[in-house]
Amino acid sequence: VNRFEANLRIPGPTSLPDVVREAGARQMVNHRGPEFAVLQNSIVARLKTFYRTENDILIVTAAGTGGLESAIVSFLSPGDKVLAVSIGAFGDRFAKIATAYGADVTKVAFDWGKAADVARVREALLAGGPWKAVLMTQNETSTAVTNPIAALAAVATQVAPDALILADAISGLGAVPFETDAWGLDVVVSGSQKAWMVAPGLSFVSVSPRAWEAAATAKMPKFYFDLAAHKTSAEAGQTPWTPAVAVMFQLDAALKLMEQEGLEDIWKRHAAVGAAVRAGLTTLGFKLLADPAFASDTVTGAWIPDDLDWKTFNGKLRKYGLAVAGGQGALKGKIFRIGHLGHVTVPNILNAIAVLELALLEMGRPVTPGAAVAAAQVAALESMGAAVAEGIAR
Amino acid sequence: VNRFEANLRIPGPTSLPDVVREAGARQMVNHRGPEFAVLQNSIVARLKTFYRTENDILIVTAAGTGGLESAIVSFLSPGDKVLAVSIGAFGDRFAKIATAYGADVTKVAFDWGKAADVARVREALLAGGPWKAVLMTQNETSTAVTNPIAALAAVATQVAPDALILADAISGLGAVPFETDAWGLDVVVSGSQKAWMVAPGLSFVSVSPRAWEAAATAKMPKFYFDLAAHKTSAEAGQTPWTPAVAVMFQLDAALKLMEQEGLEDIWKRHAAVGAAVRAGLTTLGFKLLADPAFASDTVTGAWIPDDLDWKTFNGKLRKYGLAVAGGQGALKGKIFRIGHLGHVTVPNILNAIAVLELALLEMGRPVTPGAAVAAAQVAALESMGAAVAEGIAR
Repeated sequence: VNRFEANLRIPGPTSLPDVVREAGARQMVNHRGPEFAVLQNSIVARLKTFYRTENDILIVTAAGTGGLESAIVSFLSPGDKVLAVSIGAFGDRFAKIATAYGADVTKVAFDWGKAADVARVREALLAGGPWKAVLMTQNETSTAVTNPIAALAAVATQVAPDALILADAISGLGAVPFETDAWGLDVVVSGSQKAWMVAPGLSFVSVSPRAWEAAATAKMPKFYFDLAAHKTSAEAGQTPWTPAVAVMFQLDAALKLMEQEGLEDIWKRHAAVGAAVRAGLTTLGFKLLADPAFASDTVTGAWIPDDLDWKTFNGKLRKYGLAVAGGQGALKGKIFRIGHLGHVTVPNILNAIAVLELALLEMGRPVTPGAAVAAAQVAALESMGAAVAEGIAR
Repeated sequence: VNRFEANLRIPGPTSLPDVVREAGARQMVNHRGPEFAVLQNSIVARLKTFYRTENDILIVTAAGTGGLESAIVSFLSPGDKVLAVSIGAFGDRFAKIATAYGADVTKVAFDWGKAADVARVREALLAGGPWKAVLMTQNETSTAVTNPIAALAAVATQVAPDALILADAISGLGAVPFETDAWGLDVVVSGSQKAWMVAPGLSFVSVSPRAWEAAATAKMPKFYFDLAAHKTSAEAGQTPWTPAVAVMFQLDAALKLMEQEGLEDIWKRHAAVGAAVRAGLTTLGFKLLADPAFASDTVTGAWIPDDLDWKTFNGKLRKYGLAVAGGQGALKGKIFRIGHLGHVTVPNILNAIAVLELALLEMGRPVTPGAAVAAAQVAALESMGAAVAEGIAR
């Protein structure tokens, strides 16, 4: 491990606060014993406040992709008509899982970097069906775009009221505004290594009463990812299979930190950080991938300029302790991404922008020293509602 | 968490050595970066020495049950004839997964507490087929029985040479003698929270070349547990979905300890510990569940006497810091189990026996103080090849 890599700015796993890290070093307990039951019940109750839901929440030991699979196989049957709204690699993945298990999937895809267009989704809903489910992504990690998921859910509810709404909220929930119940989302998937500031290994899935009704007749083959089995076990304070106990210890510690900060302050922090990243990257001359109207506050993607040698540039970033992510799928080698969710502050991000600036300067690129940091500072302050004196800041 | 519960004697999660625990507190790294690739490649190479195999080993982020599911869905197709050899709850589970995904499963079941009878397995193989796969359990955690898996594999190879042999070695591999290649096992599943002394969250699956050939035409639906996708990613030093990074840090630390001790000394330690537990429990008056000829050296099950109030007894054990496991499936409420695998020494087990003895004495049971500890000491010493002077020990 690079001992200088202190600045982990990828969109998950995110950097862990010290108390969270340390909770990962706790001794094991009996996962069928009373202490575990108390732990799981407490975690689930607290997750519900962040999900803004009264639905059940199940804890699945798997990466987020496993959570997505649980959302497909627990509620659907082969042949079910499913509309998959995709704006990137993770929307595609959700659709692929449904296809792999025999759903009759119609994909409505949008250009990468754009959000889903509600009118086009409405047309697609009207053009087919009857829909058993609509799949949507809250925050598309591959393109750094946040969908207007409230509006997408509203149109699905209006046009296809019987369809279950299954939402991938893995890289946004807990960081940016989200309302499971108010938006009418039946199944919502998140993952420990994102906004929750915890190591990877757990996925969380909320399930509405009408999704449970669908589960009773769902015929897709399943075993490990059967959420009904998770519900039965959870009622006895257990999990059906041995859970990632150490990650649960970390989650318990992280939820305490999140509760201390408060949900709305967490949202404000991510908004300020997102604004700072976008201003900083733009000032450095990078072109951002995402439509500005739907830019994500948890991850930002920027095009790699044709005349920038990525390998050299990324090597310098790593030398200075900054880890960023590359592109995924069709964007591999074309963009880089900065993750800014979970345990990340405005000063953390100013540091990342300063390192990017330093590396560009070192490579002789036409960059004004300090300008990107200044732009990021101003953007963050403005996002937080602070007035920046014109003469000083501009 | 019970702060006095120092003696975690359940068959997984097992207690973690301090250096392993502490590795769980490390900061995250980029799971698509070079440090992770080095870590995964190193872990896989070292796992192979414990598996005694030159086959590929894939790391799956899931409980052991997820590893079993990956073994089924990656190599089989709906309708495939599968012979499932079951001696308990985990053998039944392996069969259920195959059935859930549409395999045509014939189960050969044996009384709980008995090992699989090789002659009966031969008859079952001859009576049906053609077999696409034979499922077997190395060490049945629910009944504390170790199967004669070398002999079972040999008969499968002889009678059904085209059948893949899929082995659940979750609770034995790394603790008791095991030979993946010499025994001709195509797919072997293990789990981090057992002999490996690591938190739960990872499953390991070895795959033979002929199993990969079968994977190319396997038609069971799959996504998360597709081992071929894991192989493709592993070749690039990655995993297809975000891995349980902190558990991998722990595994790295645990493998170092296992290498320092040496595989054969680990086997000897488990043999001594197993002998000690059986002698101690028997001396305390408990009747053991397992056929003595096939008693497991990683877990021991004992019948709860009709006149022993289990709740009171277990409450006392917990008060004295000892956590044991209950029965599973048909044995729930009828037996208790002591796990003795991974980070466990003869002195640890003498402590557990002493606590059991103390609790029985406190309940007024007819137990001779010290007698069970004495019997456990003698059994352990004899297992380790030490002569115990007659006049002193008996």
